[in-house]
Amino acid sequence: MADSTALTPDFDSHPIDHTLVAALAAPAWIEVVWSDGRTSRFHHVWLRDNCPCERCVHQGTKEQMFELVTTSADLHPLDTSVGPTGALVVLWASGGNPHDPPHCSEFHPGWLRRHAYDDASRRARNRTLITWDGQSLPEPPTFDGRAIMVDDDALYEWLGALDRFGVSRVQHVPCEVDAIADLVGRIGIIRETNFGLLWDVKSESNPISNANTSLPLPPHVDLPTREYQPGLQFLHCILNETAGGENILVDGYRIAELIREHHPADYEVLTTVPFEWANRSRTSDYRWSSPLIVIDADGSLREMRVGNWLRAPLDVPFEMVEDCYRAYRRLFELTYRSDLQLRFRLEPGEVMAFDNRRALHARGELTDTSGRRFLRGCYSERDELRSRMRMIERARRERQVATATASSPDR
Amino acid sequence: MADSTALTPDFDSHPIDHTLVAALAAPAWIEVVWSDGRTSRFHHVWLRDNCPCERCVHQGTKEQMFELVTTSADLHPLDTSVGPTGALVVLWASGGNPHDPPHCSEFHPGWLRRHAYDDASRRARNRTLITWDGQSLPEPPTFDGRAIMVDDDALYEWLGALDRFGVSRVQHVPCEVDAIADLVGRIGIIRETNFGLLWDVKSESNPISNANTSLPLPPHVDLPTREYQPGLQFLHCILNETAGGENILVDGYRIAELIREHHPADYEVLTTVPFEWANRSRTSDYRWSSPLIVIDADGSLREMRVGNWLRAPLDVPFEMVEDCYRAYRRLFELTYRSDLQLRFRLEPGEVMAFDNRRALHARGELTDTSGRRFLRGCYSERDELRSRMRMIERARRERQVATATASSPDR
Repeated sequence: MADSTALTPDFDSHPIDHTLVAALAAPAWIEVVWSDGRTSRFHHVWLRDNCPCERCVHQGTKEQMFELVTTSADLHPLDTSVGPTGALVVLWASGGNPHDPPHCSEFHPGWLRRHAYDDASRRARNRTLITWDGQSLPEPPTFDGRAIMVDDDALYEWLGALDRFGVSRVQHVPCEVDAIADLVGRIGIIRETNFGLLWDVKSESNPISNANTSLPLPPHVDLPTREYQPGLQFLHCILNETAGGENILVDGYRIAELIREHHPADYEVLTTVPFEWANRSRTSDYRWSSPLIVIDADGSLREMRVGNWLRAPLDVPFEMVEDCYRAYRRLFELTYRSDLQLRFRLEPGEVMAFDNRRALHARGELTDTSGRRFLRGCYSERDELRSRMRMIERARRERQVATATASSPDR
Repeated sequence: MADSTALTPDFDSHPIDHTLVAALAAPAWIEVVWSDGRTSRFHHVWLRDNCPCERCVHQGTKEQMFELVTTSADLHPLDTSVGPTGALVVLWASGGNPHDPPHCSEFHPGWLRRHAYDDASRRARNRTLITWDGQSLPEPPTFDGRAIMVDDDALYEWLGALDRFGVSRVQHVPCEVDAIADLVGRIGIIRETNFGLLWDVKSESNPISNANTSLPLPPHVDLPTREYQPGLQFLHCILNETAGGENILVDGYRIAELIREHHPADYEVLTTVPFEWANRSRTSDYRWSSPLIVIDADGSLREMRVGNWLRAPLDVPFEMVEDCYRAYRRLFELTYRSDLQLRFRLEPGEVMAFDNRRALHARGELTDTSGRRFLRGCYSERDELRSRMRMIERARRERQVATATASSPDR
């Protein structure tokens, strides 16, 4: 199968798994038929907006120069066809200005198929949220740090699990103070905060945070006090001679689902009423207001904001206070339900990596602190992870296209 | 007036501008009367949750150890009074367990007044959003960088304006490549992105972004492709020998208000339907989905996500495509309305600092690129700004309390 020579508005490769068989004009859209029988409709305005030609897209940056707002709202094609290279070719009417030369757009079939928005194509792209508890996920998905450091496929497997479950464990990470930076460097940029770029968790005589005491830590996310809670957290165990201090993870999204199902009034409070969050520090004063469960406009879960000791006093109208505390208590009771908890002990050379805004983490009390315990941590973001996964997928597609082109009889 | 000796659950100072006159028990709350006649009611559960004693709050970290979820839901006081130091004193019933010793909470009157949630107290804390256009704000609020570098009051004035209007200009910033880092260092942490910690804006022969061409840039926010768009942007003009390239700022919140008022159907689309955002790069592939106007559960504006050339193809159900494009066109038409735009030319030694998620920025075409133009930029976050402002306020309160204590006849 010949590769299309049409430009695309990105740096990606687009294997052509299905060719265009026909293109049919309709009043406001073009319907195409694919070689596997699927049909996709593309609105004229959508096609014009996505024209990849060198007048519309800067070919050095692949960023759009064309602005839809500069054209007439009455966009329609003069002619539509499948071109000799297999691309969808659209010749546009001048758009109200008869002096404009007609504009021609060519859409690469691989690119077009990938961005089709018919129901079947959208369903195929859909990701289903899978939540877990201590039964369905008795231990964190576990990976080998030595492979992750050198092999993109191993890196991809780890990141896929972390993205899907929000929790993971990496073993065989060198017990050195900067090893966590090397591991996270495989993903992307470390997020610096008031704790620094890398930070320590150890019992201290003069702690700046309850994390650095021997106290148990209730299930929480880190930095709910910030407008942007870090998306990913990495904790590297370098030394652990203590008793106690067991690691606990809970799927915050499972808790949200349980409350939504069994306690809808509490869910309404938890998703709509802003609670107050504040760090305690002599050198900074971060505060933010946010519901404990944050959902998108379509109701899907976006993040949890939970941390008992990082709240500022509740600041809501008088008549809402009791409802808020009832809902708050409900959520915290669930975080302590043992069947929802994943419990394990992080050993030296192991990293726990988790979605800091989905997986609540907790620590059992350090019952014997005569030994030393030293963890090193850092933060990154969800979209650093997804960018890295996409770049690995992009490299795979590039190889796929190169192979198809090399073996094509039309070459 | 004697300062209360009660602890507070933070490192802040709490001047006592109003003393407690009386504390009255009610079934589910305590009503206090202040020396200025205001009354505030505090629920039992709220008071118990905020107990600042050393059993409830770690006095080294000021972080809470007490967990509400570990107590009975039936919390009530045995006794309530205004103590000899002026604090509200509450002696708690044991909460279901007769073997627990009774717990006593003392609330500092300055702290208590500051966190009161009666209607009058909440109204007094309320911030009203003030939006602007090119008439009401003909030029950006302008400040002296030399003063900002050495004087916290000058820093506070600048940050207050930036927080209120989302735009500002700082003059007399040294024309050196790292001067912008020193200026932003006065606020807090610089946010590193795929552009680096500090980045350059100049016309290049091989640009990675349309920002580094001579093209005009339509009104946009930076990095709408990221889950977390940077909250603050700083652009430092070091050299400008070109013609054109005028700086344009538009209050995105004003545009949102106009659409909400005049085009409610478009507002519904723009606040609920996720558009697709994607950077174009050979080395990263950041994408996110988000409505163009993001509002909180109560309808208040949180952020704009706008950038014509940073969109990925729209991916919504077929029947919504035309509504989405109609609303999109509406928003972009408003960004180009000249009466809404603030236009100025950034001169060498000047920094424009703006809320990157509220103020859309644009650049006129560089009409003569024979001269050199060099801008240096970086990002930070809204909550870094607010933390810095609070720390300056905290220092002021500390001085106020120290002065009041020194001059107190009871000392």
